[in-house]
Amino acid sequence: MKAAVLCTGTELTRGELVDTNGPWLAAALTQKGHDVVEVVSVADDLSWMSNTVRRLAKASELMVVCGGLGPTTDDITRSVVAEVLGVPLVRDQDQVDTIARRLAARGRDMTESNARQADLPQGADVFPNAQGTAPGFAVTLDGCRAYFMPGVPSEMRYMFHTLVAPAVGAASRGMAQVVLHAWGGAESAVCDRLAGIESAYDVTLGYRAHMPSLEIKVLATAAEQAEAEGRARSAANEVRRRLGAGVVFGEGGQRLATVVGSELTARGQSIALAESCTGGLVSRLLTEHAGASRYFLGAVVSYANSAKETLLSVPGCDLERWGAVSEPVARAMAEGTRKVHGSDVGLSFTGIAGPEGGSGEKPVGLVYIGMATAEATVVEKHLLFGSRPEVQMRAAFAGLNLVRKHLLGIGLEDGSEREHSP
Amino acid sequence: MKAAVLCTGTELTRGELVDTNGPWLAAALTQKGHDVVEVVSVADDLSWMSNTVRRLAKASELMVVCGGLGPTTDDITRSVVAEVLGVPLVRDQDQVDTIARRLAARGRDMTESNARQADLPQGADVFPNAQGTAPGFAVTLDGCRAYFMPGVPSEMRYMFHTLVAPAVGAASRGMAQVVLHAWGGAESAVCDRLAGIESAYDVTLGYRAHMPSLEIKVLATAAEQAEAEGRARSAANEVRRRLGAGVVFGEGGQRLATVVGSELTARGQSIALAESCTGGLVSRLLTEHAGASRYFLGAVVSYANSAKETLLSVPGCDLERWGAVSEPVARAMAEGTRKVHGSDVGLSFTGIAGPEGGSGEKPVGLVYIGMATAEATVVEKHLLFGSRPEVQMRAAFAGLNLVRKHLLGIGLEDGSEREHSP
Repeated sequence: MKAAVLCTGTELTRGELVDTNGPWLAAALTQKGHDVVEVVSVADDLSWMSNTVRRLAKASELMVVCGGLGPTTDDITRSVVAEVLGVPLVRDQDQVDTIARRLAARGRDMTESNARQADLPQGADVFPNAQGTAPGFAVTLDGCRAYFMPGVPSEMRYMFHTLVAPAVGAASRGMAQVVLHAWGGAESAVCDRLAGIESAYDVTLGYRAHMPSLEIKVLATAAEQAEAEGRARSAANEVRRRLGAGVVFGEGGQRLATVVGSELTARGQSIALAESCTGGLVSRLLTEHAGASRYFLGAVVSYANSAKETLLSVPGCDLERWGAVSEPVARAMAEGTRKVHGSDVGLSFTGIAGPEGGSGEKPVGLVYIGMATAEATVVEKHLLFGSRPEVQMRAAFAGLNLVRKHLLGIGLEDGSEREHSP
Repeated sequence: MKAAVLCTGTELTRGELVDTNGPWLAAALTQKGHDVVEVVSVADDLSWMSNTVRRLAKASELMVVCGGLGPTTDDITRSVVAEVLGVPLVRDQDQVDTIARRLAARGRDMTESNARQADLPQGADVFPNAQGTAPGFAVTLDGCRAYFMPGVPSEMRYMFHTLVAPAVGAASRGMAQVVLHAWGGAESAVCDRLAGIESAYDVTLGYRAHMPSLEIKVLATAAEQAEAEGRARSAANEVRRRLGAGVVFGEGGQRLATVVGSELTARGQSIALAESCTGGLVSRLLTEHAGASRYFLGAVVSYANSAKETLLSVPGCDLERWGAVSEPVARAMAEGTRKVHGSDVGLSFTGIAGPEGGSGEKPVGLVYIGMATAEATVVEKHLLFGSRPEVQMRAAFAGLNLVRKHLLGIGLEDGSEREHSP
């Protein structure tokens, strides 16, 4: 069913607030199989709002609106709906009583402003507000079923779950989506390598840069849910096959750091870091998720050269001869942090994140990544592009993916070139 | 000038992503005095997008659009505009060359998908993309000036600042906004303390939680720009005075980490960290900004107890007797990292970020923060609320604000209680 979401409030059109109600409602409706074509925020302006409600009622079969039901003068949604329907506002005495009771429980008297929240368009179906004072309601406009809810997120969500969602119901068609996460392929190159999948599997592919990785969305719709799920899965498997396990690192809610964490945990292995140009970012990525203590022992953020010598035993002569951003120093850092922490894997980063500090020989974006294990130490040289935080994030991903491929036994030949300059 | 903001992408209408481009652009246009009446997200659907572009062009005099300019098949904005204008798409050879050069710099060849980004509606004014490959452009539709930019936030913002904003210009009325950043006061409590400022200075105050800090926006409008600026500034000074320097830590583009960095640099002082529960986050906050090497020497992310002993010389008996999350260990960590790095300030974090690992005596959210200087070592005990990343971020802010107050000579009595459970 074609659906639209409307959020009202001048704080939204002035950009004072990032609207989260709209995306939340869009996701809830999508999950029930509805086809949300538009999510719109409009200012608290009577004629603009009326036009928008009229327009969306014509263009869609289902409309969910939030905001503008409160007691203050800028809460005009009730009046807008009455005007569009050509009916008067009628005070709902049951709702007045409910509002009075609710205010009394907070030790407050009911004012006329409060009571106005019970003025509803004649003929509307009322949805009591279990979490606040302003009731919601539903009307049918031009064949479109329209639901109106308060804008306070907690009140809106509760009302949606308990009253609106059951009334809206699910669309009759099936819809399934698989989201894959890729690293090491440019968006355009990935798109080229997936050519033909859409028609072969009757799915829609969507791409979203999720700095620094790429989200590939595989969406299938069908009369039956099981068929949609089957087709989305088959197409997702084909995407994985074409891009390779070196590039596709996860799916759904997985993150590169959690995938690395799971693989380490599964093998009973631990990791320690030595971070220079990434400045703690990689540690942060590993520790923002619960359970990191199972595999993460610690890190040395050796920003100054003296810290590299003192804490990681990087030979002073290497620092002098090759400079801090060099293959021998990356190697010594990885081995040093592995040794001092007693971890299975030692991972190091040294490079020039910019925007300053680059030279002809060692430009901004040059990053050496070292990985020390019981078997060997490898060092990768990367030339990464972007702003300072982007270079840092790309370096972090390159390092974590190096560990992931090592644990999974994926050869460096698979995807490593693309990684060097993604 | 009546203005509209349009963001395209099925990821927005499906609610997979909270759109931040729309609010950002709405705020930027509002700040220039334009009257944004609508912020809308539409799906990547040719006919729906065309209808929306046509509609907004009729209803407003200025339209800013972002998204759908990339190289993949779901990037259809260029085609939409060509269709609405009734002109063909024409490949802009200058832009093809630019794209090819940019890709070559990353060691990549240009594919046909990449080149398609230079197919622009005939007669459009081109805006080169200094941060990515997809150029932006502007056209006039039905008397409405419409600007089209890529959807990648960093590319969009840069293009807006450097090219679109100067072209759009400011509306003729004066408008000025000062944004203050506060930490250590609940939104409602801050709001109460600022009562009366709006009427006294004829300004509008806006609040936005910007986890974990609070943005306070002071907006003034007037016939003359200078008057608006004067009033916004006076009111902002009054906000600063009422909340105190312990709470208001910055303004505009400042971040707590950059403020701490500037204050350290101004005094020629350096800092080193010892992070346990914050897992590298504080190092990350300090090093994501350029110039961190002037004051940041390094950090030990001592996640495992053994790292605390080996790298920071935390006495094993303290760890055994008091546990890792304790006042003596926070103290030893701060002093240890200060000593091993030879820094002026040593800052340490040890706590329980959750969601597991809490106990009756040491609940989730308990964090000890230690600060060692030449004069003394102080340890603060905090009980912070929220999810794991929120506890970590609140701890990071509490620690950085502790250093800021130390450097500025602000007494702990000013705001410290509110910090303990903000």
